Amino acid sequence: MLELRPVFFVIGILLMTLALAMVMPAVADAAVGNPDWQVFLAASGLTLFIGGALFLTMRTKDIALTIRQAFLLTVLSWIAITVFGSLPFVFAELDMSYTDAFFEAMSGVTTTGSTVIVALDKAPPGILLWRALLQWLGGVGIIVMAVAVLPMLQVGGMQIFRMESSDRSEKVLPRAAQIASGISTVYLALTMICALFYWLYGMTGFEAVTHAMTTIATGGFSTSNQSLGHFDSAAIDWTAVTFMIVGSLPFVLYLQVVRGRPGELIRDAQVKTFLIITIAFVTLVTCGYWTTSGGSPLHALCMSALNSVSIMTGTGYTTADFDVWGAFAAPLFFIAMFIGGCAGSTTCGIKIFRFQVLYATAITQMRQLLQPHGVFIAYYNRRPIPEEVAVSVMSFVFLYVLCFAVLATVLGALGLDFLTAVSGAATAISNVGPGLGETIGPAGTFSKLPDPAKWALSAGMLLGRLELFTVLILFAPSFWRD
Amino acid sequence: MLELRPVFFVIGILLMTLALAMVMPAVADAAVGNPDWQVFLAASGLTLFIGGALFLTMRTKDIALTIRQAFLLTVLSWIAITVFGSLPFVFAELDMSYTDAFFEAMSGVTTTGSTVIVALDKAPPGILLWRALLQWLGGVGIIVMAVAVLPMLQVGGMQIFRMESSDRSEKVLPRAAQIASGISTVYLALTMICALFYWLYGMTGFEAVTHAMTTIATGGFSTSNQSLGHFDSAAIDWTAVTFMIVGSLPFVLYLQVVRGRPGELIRDAQVKTFLIITIAFVTLVTCGYWTTSGGSPLHALCMSALNSVSIMTGTGYTTADFDVWGAFAAPLFFIAMFIGGCAGSTTCGIKIFRFQVLYATAITQMRQLLQPHGVFIAYYNRRPIPEEVAVSVMSFVFLYVLCFAVLATVLGALGLDFLTAVSGAATAISNVGPGLGETIGPAGTFSKLPDPAKWALSAGMLLGRLELFTVLILFAPSFWRD
Repeated sequence: MLELRPVFFVIGILLMTLALAMVMPAVADAAVGNPDWQVFLAASGLTLFIGGALFLTMRTKDIALTIRQAFLLTVLSWIAITVFGSLPFVFAELDMSYTDAFFEAMSGVTTTGSTVIVALDKAPPGILLWRALLQWLGGVGIIVMAVAVLPMLQVGGMQIFRMESSDRSEKVLPRAAQIASGISTVYLALTMICALFYWLYGMTGFEAVTHAMTTIATGGFSTSNQSLGHFDSAAIDWTAVTFMIVGSLPFVLYLQVVRGRPGELIRDAQVKTFLIITIAFVTLVTCGYWTTSGGSPLHALCMSALNSVSIMTGTGYTTADFDVWGAFAAPLFFIAMFIGGCAGSTTCGIKIFRFQVLYATAITQMRQLLQPHGVFIAYYNRRPIPEEVAVSVMSFVFLYVLCFAVLATVLGALGLDFLTAVSGAATAISNVGPGLGETIGPAGTFSKLPDPAKWALSAGMLLGRLELFTVLILFAPSFWRD
Repeated sequence: MLELRPVFFVIGILLMTLALAMVMPAVADAAVGNPDWQVFLAASGLTLFIGGALFLTMRTKDIALTIRQAFLLTVLSWIAITVFGSLPFVFAELDMSYTDAFFEAMSGVTTTGSTVIVALDKAPPGILLWRALLQWLGGVGIIVMAVAVLPMLQVGGMQIFRMESSDRSEKVLPRAAQIASGISTVYLALTMICALFYWLYGMTGFEAVTHAMTTIATGGFSTSNQSLGHFDSAAIDWTAVTFMIVGSLPFVLYLQVVRGRPGELIRDAQVKTFLIITIAFVTLVTCGYWTTSGGSPLHALCMSALNSVSIMTGTGYTTADFDVWGAFAAPLFFIAMFIGGCAGSTTCGIKIFRFQVLYATAITQMRQLLQPHGVFIAYYNRRPIPEEVAVSVMSFVFLYVLCFAVLATVLGALGLDFLTAVSGAATAISNVGPGLGETIGPAGTFSKLPDPAKWALSAGMLLGRLELFTVLILFAPSFWRD
């Protein structure tokens, strides 16, 4: 039998943290005299009670997790936070159905950014802050998980980063805790800097803070249904572009910068490739936009940079309905959804290092074809890629495409049109935010979708956020056997 | 320097064969008194002249090909046959532009089945027979290539079949020639049986022969723009379903059946998996069709079986505009385009054995995740999958998705709408035939597309047909270095 006590113990701690976070929107609503402050306080109390109960009853001496427990903990903690995080949505003034509340919370926690709320601009500050907080916590949660848990679980080729950062002089567990707290500090500092810029460029203090939270988390929740388009400011757009990119780089490397080793960030192969792909992609979209829409090249660049960096990194801000930019845009943005940022960042998607591993392997394959008896080795970051990492990465990409295909088929079977089904599946599994087309495109919301589609999309978000294997492995019969 | 003489020598032989094939449509047109017989004869003469010249001037003592020569020969021979095969289209009564003629010839030779001819029903017999012949020759050509050339070139994991069929008692070259002639005989016999059934069930002799050719080749060219829907006969539909499946199985195994070893066919893992996937897919589509369209279950089954087997195997026959069957159909048929049949058949697409290798590897990955220190081996056909085959298969699938994405983007940039761009890219690269949507869907043709799109799609067909690597490797600088 799988020993569940340590799993529930840790979930208890996480829920207590969540309960603490719920106090903030309560304060915000109380400040403007909105009665929702009671909802947040009640939700906080309930969450604290359940969390505290788990914490107290599930205490064990032995907190060291086995691999199975670690998998289970990862999945269950994300679900638990979503379930409790959805409480304020259900009971607040907005009067959402439970399906909608769960969808919105899952979209928040997984830093997706798809929304079902059609009247964001009139929503009370508590709800808006809560949406931002969910993304902000989800963002830092995923970085810590990517750094501390996933390499241990060897999911989807992430073990490549374990080897890289193995530093024999330090012990593992205190080191993981140390890294986690270091990353959290950097994360907080970057959010504050981002908020400062937003505020300087004209946002209110509240808007600056909530948007900074969802920018660094590459989440994309906004305080307006027009997203960043609401502010109509190039300075704000460029701030967003900058900090979305900041949120897409490996946070471990920021720690190195703080420790006086900026070379680690500058020389990193993944960072370089990410920037090259971003520049290439923005250039392509700018050319397409400029030739079809006209206007000044600088305006075209700003529009293209914001919307394409936003979709590529899976943030989900928009300043325009890029869906109607002409035929060139839809396939480009659709493909961009799958890319993502660097591993160890807040982004989702297939991620840059996997493309690097795949590319290096494919090139090596070609050389091998020409010289069948030669020995060719694929490299990543100037080190040979172990065969098991290559296989692991490729299995991941295969499962990614498979899960996308299944989700798109399910959405189609639920009656969604082709563009909505296909782009909806992609945007969910890559945690992007908006899809394509009239319904779920940049100008729409997910509110009109049928309930089963919202549940399917929620499942897709979780699957994508936890790198597929972590979730899928729970469905293997052998997981539950001794 | 790459020695090109043996490459051009073999191309010379192939062109002379093509010239011989052109005599048949000349006879057909002469029989009905259509002046196009002169066009076919002239094209035949020109092709024979060029082919003969190459044959005579490029003779070399040493015909044994190096690996580089084999790659170049494969690509150049497919292009040469397309170029000369397009001549009748240019000069015949239909008066096609060269772009259209090249597209139609490429669609034929690669057994794709996309057409730009809008008035097939009024076309003279010569052209109709020529289209069928191109697919029929392309079909047997690809089987021989898959059996004799690709395993040697180790393309996309095809080396798995080299090991399997290595029989030390025979010598390699005479064996390849023997297998090729055995397969051609089986191919001819199956075509004749298929034609007989078509004829028995009500087609004219001409229709029966042309359709039999394009059924066994899983090509999909028809003599009517309504495709098989023109005949409106369940018996003909089921004959097509049967022989499309026959064309999707490994032809080497038919040789074994002829030699009295039917067990090889029945026990083959790829055949089993193909049949299971086919049955599952047809069931899914039947349920979807029946619940949305009503009618008798048997009618639903027949409609679903024909159209889904046709799309999955990349044949391209249709009996209905499945595009309007309801929202469930489009994503399903879109995904089906990528599947394909067995390796060593006339089908294109990713192919069943690759899915088996990917699936086995992914499952092994999961087990490894749970027991990091265990040793787990993935199996194919009861033999362990060598690591290099797994990596090779996965590189192939990565490149497949990449080429699809690039092609879809290019088509989008050329002004095609999302559904047309995305399904067009898929149908070209997988050699299916029809796409989705109003323009290139089952009820449309490719004639309305802009010329650059037709060239891009032609390139996609060639790329898919020759298993990507074979074409892409020619663009590697190292290919041309010594």
